[in-house]
Amino acid sequence: MPRTTMMTTPVTTTTTNKPKRYSLANDYCVAVHPRILELMVCDNMTQHVGYGLDSHCAEAAHMIRQLIEQPNADVHFIPGGTQTNLIACSLALRPWEAVIATHLGHVSTHETGAIEATGHKVFAVPCQDGKLRVADVASALHENRSEHMVVPKLVYISNTTEVGTQYTKQELRDLSDFCKAHDLYLFLDGARLASALSSPSGDLTLADIAGLTDIFYIGATKAGGLFGEALIILNDTLKPKVRHLIKQRGALMAKGWLLGLQFKVLMSNNLLFELGAHSNRMSAILKTGLEACGIQFAWPSESNQQFPIMPDAMIEALREDFDFDTVETLKNGTSIIRLCTSWSTEEKECHRFVEVLKRVVTSAA
Amino acid sequence: MPRTTMMTTPVTTTTTNKPKRYSLANDYCVAVHPRILELMVCDNMTQHVGYGLDSHCAEAAHMIRQLIEQPNADVHFIPGGTQTNLIACSLALRPWEAVIATHLGHVSTHETGAIEATGHKVFAVPCQDGKLRVADVASALHENRSEHMVVPKLVYISNTTEVGTQYTKQELRDLSDFCKAHDLYLFLDGARLASALSSPSGDLTLADIAGLTDIFYIGATKAGGLFGEALIILNDTLKPKVRHLIKQRGALMAKGWLLGLQFKVLMSNNLLFELGAHSNRMSAILKTGLEACGIQFAWPSESNQQFPIMPDAMIEALREDFDFDTVETLKNGTSIIRLCTSWSTEEKECHRFVEVLKRVVTSAA
Amino acid sequence: MPRTTMMTTPVTTTTTNKPKRYSLANDYCVAVHPRILELMVCDNMTQHVGYGLDSHCAEAAHMIRQLIEQPNADVHFIPGGTQTNLIACSLALRPWEAVIATHLGHVSTHETGAIEATGHKVFAVPCQDGKLRVADVASALHENRSEHMVVPKLVYISNTTEVGTQYTKQELRDLSDFCKAHDLYLFLDGARLASALSSPSGDLTLADIAGLTDIFYIGATKAGGLFGEALIILNDTLKPKVRHLIKQRGALMAKGWLLGLQFKVLMSNNLLFELGAHSNRMSAILKTGLEACGIQFAWPSESNQQFPIMPDAMIEALREDFDFDTVETLKNGTSIIRLCTSWSTEEKECHRFVEVLKRVVTSAA
Amino acid sequence: MPRTTMMTTPVTTTTTNKPKRYSLANDYCVAVHPRILELMVCDNMTQHVGYGLDSHCAEAAHMIRQLIEQPNADVHFIPGGTQTNLIACSLALRPWEAVIATHLGHVSTHETGAIEATGHKVFAVPCQDGKLRVADVASALHENRSEHMVVPKLVYISNTTEVGTQYTKQELRDLSDFCKAHDLYLFLDGARLASALSSPSGDLTLADIAGLTDIFYIGATKAGGLFGEALIILNDTLKPKVRHLIKQRGALMAKGWLLGLQFKVLMSNNLLFELGAHSNRMSAILKTGLEACGIQFAWPSESNQQFPIMPDAMIEALREDFDFDTVETLKNGTSIIRLCTSWSTEEKECHRFVEVLKRVVTSAA
Repeated sequence: MPRTTMMTTPVTTTTTNKPKRYSLANDYCVAVHPRILELMVCDNMTQHVGYGLDSHCAEAAHMIRQLIEQPNADVHFIPGGTQTNLIACSLALRPWEAVIATHLGHVSTHETGAIEATGHKVFAVPCQDGKLRVADVASALHENRSEHMVVPKLVYISNTTEVGTQYTKQELRDLSDFCKAHDLYLFLDGARLASALSSPSGDLTLADIAGLTDIFYIGATKAGGLFGEALIILNDTLKPKVRHLIKQRGALMAKGWLLGLQFKVLMSNNLLFELGAHSNRMSAILKTGLEACGIQFAWPSESNQQFPIMPDAMIEALREDFDFDTVETLKNGTSIIRLCTSWSTEEKECHRFVEVLKRVVTSAA
Repeated sequence: MPRTTMMTTPVTTTTTNKPKRYSLANDYCVAVHPRILELMVCDNMTQHVGYGLDSHCAEAAHMIRQLIEQPNADVHFIPGGTQTNLIACSLALRPWEAVIATHLGHVSTHETGAIEATGHKVFAVPCQDGKLRVADVASALHENRSEHMVVPKLVYISNTTEVGTQYTKQELRDLSDFCKAHDLYLFLDGARLASALSSPSGDLTLADIAGLTDIFYIGATKAGGLFGEALIILNDTLKPKVRHLIKQRGALMAKGWLLGLQFKVLMSNNLLFELGAHSNRMSAILKTGLEACGIQFAWPSESNQQFPIMPDAMIEALREDFDFDTVETLKNGTSIIRLCTSWSTEEKECHRFVEVLKRVVTSAA
Repeated sequence: MPRTTMMTTPVTTTTTNKPKRYSLANDYCVAVHPRILELMVCDNMTQHVGYGLDSHCAEAAHMIRQLIEQPNADVHFIPGGTQTNLIACSLALRPWEAVIATHLGHVSTHETGAIEATGHKVFAVPCQDGKLRVADVASALHENRSEHMVVPKLVYISNTTEVGTQYTKQELRDLSDFCKAHDLYLFLDGARLASALSSPSGDLTLADIAGLTDIFYIGATKAGGLFGEALIILNDTLKPKVRHLIKQRGALMAKGWLLGLQFKVLMSNNLLFELGAHSNRMSAILKTGLEACGIQFAWPSESNQQFPIMPDAMIEALREDFDFDTVETLKNGTSIIRLCTSWSTEEKECHRFVEVLKRVVTSAA
Repeated sequence: MPRTTMMTTPVTTTTTNKPKRYSLANDYCVAVHPRILELMVCDNMTQHVGYGLDSHCAEAAHMIRQLIEQPNADVHFIPGGTQTNLIACSLALRPWEAVIATHLGHVSTHETGAIEATGHKVFAVPCQDGKLRVADVASALHENRSEHMVVPKLVYISNTTEVGTQYTKQELRDLSDFCKAHDLYLFLDGARLASALSSPSGDLTLADIAGLTDIFYIGATKAGGLFGEALIILNDTLKPKVRHLIKQRGALMAKGWLLGLQFKVLMSNNLLFELGAHSNRMSAILKTGLEACGIQFAWPSESNQQFPIMPDAMIEALREDFDFDTVETLKNGTSIIRLCTSWSTEEKECHRFVEVLKRVVTSAA
């Protein structure tokens, strides 16, 4: 298991679109599920109250409260994930307090210091598989006992993690118990929660998560929405004045009803999780094909991201037909790549990937 | 001219939509111009590169550079106005430096301390009509000469201003000359630039603004877009690493092509300014009707916002049919209200407003 | 009463000492009261525990708790006033909360944006005489009711104020009652508390202040100490983890016992207030002399600062013998100057000032 | 070599002084060198200009410029080390930029998140011996290439390091060359520079350091001063407006001449380095004694700190006579302790330590 820093975006920023290669580069490369777009078209000329005080948001929040079985939860809709992370951390922490996360955590490495820009240290614990465990949190507390050190206060986890793994109910319960016992907040980044909760190997439900965390969010950007995350606050001490903070951080959308509208559709008829399940099925096709070729994986995943380790020449050959990111270049002429599927990934393209892969592997042999 | 703090949003936050009253409450109460929506529908299943590195953004930036006649300008697309303001200020300022703005400036009062949250003071100069003048800037410099005081460095103006007024070419040139002579950055908040540049009394062009400022933005949220502001950087010293800062502040949209797509449409066939002109024409209908009833205005405006001063009873009567905000309750039983039109305001509703107004005035007499 | 921004330091920073002119420029131009220096010499080679965990600090804190009649108060010693102000504000405020102060408040203008650098807005209310009154606080609350505005939470006052005035017991009680009723913290900057509490026209005691505020400090820098302020926390919600914050802001002194040692001496035998009374008596000599010459004052003061308004030529003549700051240059050829006395000001120099003044006035007539 | 987090202060904060045990706990447990105290007594009633604009500071700065052979260097005197670190980082960095340091670096762990509180990430590289090497910096740059990551810009090193080791001239030159080639600032924390530059195994001079860094400081707190660090800026781009920043962070001392006065004495007759050499000699006595008992060290040191690894029972026995900190409790019943000497450490106490140690070791055998 390599100790790596994920490169989810290309290091060089070119502005050329490569339309002919099918993208498995990320789960936000296609706009929005048609059912949402349909309602947007319908609703387009309707006048709404601004800043999320409209009826779409109220209804979507109500639906979420029912699904998570927490009638007193507060629900706020925020356009993006980094915003949501920095708002949650800023909300929960006093100036001397810090976040505990894995070294692969999105807040640790991939937000250009967004948490530090709110004044808080992210105490990053090295991890094997993207998951934070009780022993890691305990060790972070142990290392930060002096007045000359920050006070760890918010435990950040993501589900699925940045490397495609996911928490079991027991693992989440253990973290939750430890956090309660040590006066820590547990915050779950659910940018890929749709994939996690619809994975064949997962045993968590939305209600479980709401019952075991202090604050978490359900991501739409990577699950069929145009943009938007639903931040859900369970712990009463975190509820007051959140809208002030959302405004201060530039995340209180003027046309906020667009967020409520999207979540209404995603929460209806289990759409969000159906889309998550689709992305997982597409990913499983890729995984099965890779395994059949004897390819190893950097991390085990039954979600929408796969991290195969492949020879660099083979990777270049695949790049002629598919777009994806290299996560880490290893020393022995191989690299870890990321193959990412989404609600919009087409099954025929996944099968084509497997075919191209077989051809590439055969010609390399 | 009252010294007031604008209340552009209701103080109490209720979540009830009031569908039967026609809204003149703001210029962001309707989603998006159909021409944009059409392209969104067309483009919906296309795969794109993320984070604004796509071809829509490249094309929109190119169109903007041509319109402003500045081939070397940098163009960044940012979802919202408060984000854009805080990014511009954070980009331009060293820790001890400050913003100069009027006391009515959006950054002074209506962003829940967003600028201060980046560590910078907003030095607010009292103003009569929303406009900042050379004498105001000079006075701010004069008052802050000691090492124990902040160093004013960025001059923030908005056009149109928060109270509907606008800068003449001469006024902007004077500010620009003064800023250059005193090593200050001039930043223009163009959330309502479409209205300003299409106002019958305005003499500024986009190219003028680009030639006279260091950094400015063109707003789409209030001019036919779903959301989005185009931040344009003219001054070379402000160009490096802006995308890092945008990411850090949570404003680097995953599906960034949505911003480019919108600006492409708005910049085509002069659409942005046609929509601005429409909002101004609708506002002029209201203004003419109000003047005909002998009603005074708190500030003179030929843009899309009118600020009549009316007896409170008359205001309550109007509220039965129309939704709008009270800006300030004055001592003598009157208040300043704001009537705001937009690209989507219907002409027949403006005429209906005038009719209802006449009836209300007559019955009050 | 001019609306002014105080210039307590020269605008240009030259490094020349002017030894021949007697300084009435400030109350920190001489090092330390001999009684403190004596103990420092005695104690100089003693080994101490660092960071304020020593016995001097413990004893000084105990003495302060007794003097203020608050056995449960927390006492922290901090090297400087700006540090103490920024720590108190950062301690008390959540990210969206703000300070209310007068426009003359030290935190408003003379700390180079120190409070804003912690992320918080200072909402400055115009004032006549340096004092904040209930109506000012009420007005600040009234102006900041929307979610788009900061939430005023900490009321900052200084006693004596920056212009030499002071609060009566009734005024402080009114503020305290209002703050309690509106869930605001009341913070008193006591950099010049020694002068305030020993002024002939004052009716407040240390115990009164401790009973009426949530947090305040007693300054030593301007009252016979080398440096140091004793921050006293009365409100239990502000007590946890303050030492972490003090460390984070660089204000946890390695040789912290030096602070405790100084306060032990200042709190013994009423020394602090005797020194305050001396500075007030010296100031009264100046005031009487000025009044005898018919000179007007910008603000009424019975403390250690006087703010006469004098013709500029007369000011220049006085500057040949005495050093002092010009606070504001008025339009009519006069200026407000500040004459500042301290624990170390010599009586004979005050009388000499009056003599020189008379000569200058006579020759000008 | 253990991967450890140093605990330089006790985790629990008790306020009891333990006068009977001789302290080897730190290098700031005794006040000030008598030669400085003498000048303080002499100068005590002299009037000075405030805020470091006095003649003592001017003279001390001049002496430093001569000693470092850099006539254009800017010199600022700041009361404490954490303040100096946070000011240097805040001065050098734009919002998206970060510090590179070792995981043992003072800024990484022992300042309660002071750097993060200014908005910047500290990118901590694991190290063996407290020293940062070119390969570490290169690796930090390699790991942070994306727009979604911070931009490392300031390289922080300390000399001596937090674990008593020190840089050779070649190591510093390599770092300096790499920094210049990669547009990085090199900042040297010299809290213990007096010990480093007077170590028998060191080959660096003050002038070398000034020639190879962009900004560094010379510490007085741990080298005979009451408090104070001299921040020296070599790189012209870092020079403007530093005093504004120092004021903003609460580090512009009212009685600033106290800092200049101290540095004048320390810079005269090589006093600073004589005191450093004394602390090293005292440390060498301890080291020789420990080695004679066959005790291993966590890190090799020829400076004023020693880090022996000893059985816990033996440590407890030593604690009856001497005060020192436990740095890390290892798994096998041993711990790393820190023995710290200073300018004031008495030779007879060092010999007594060795005697007690021998007795303890013998009785344990």
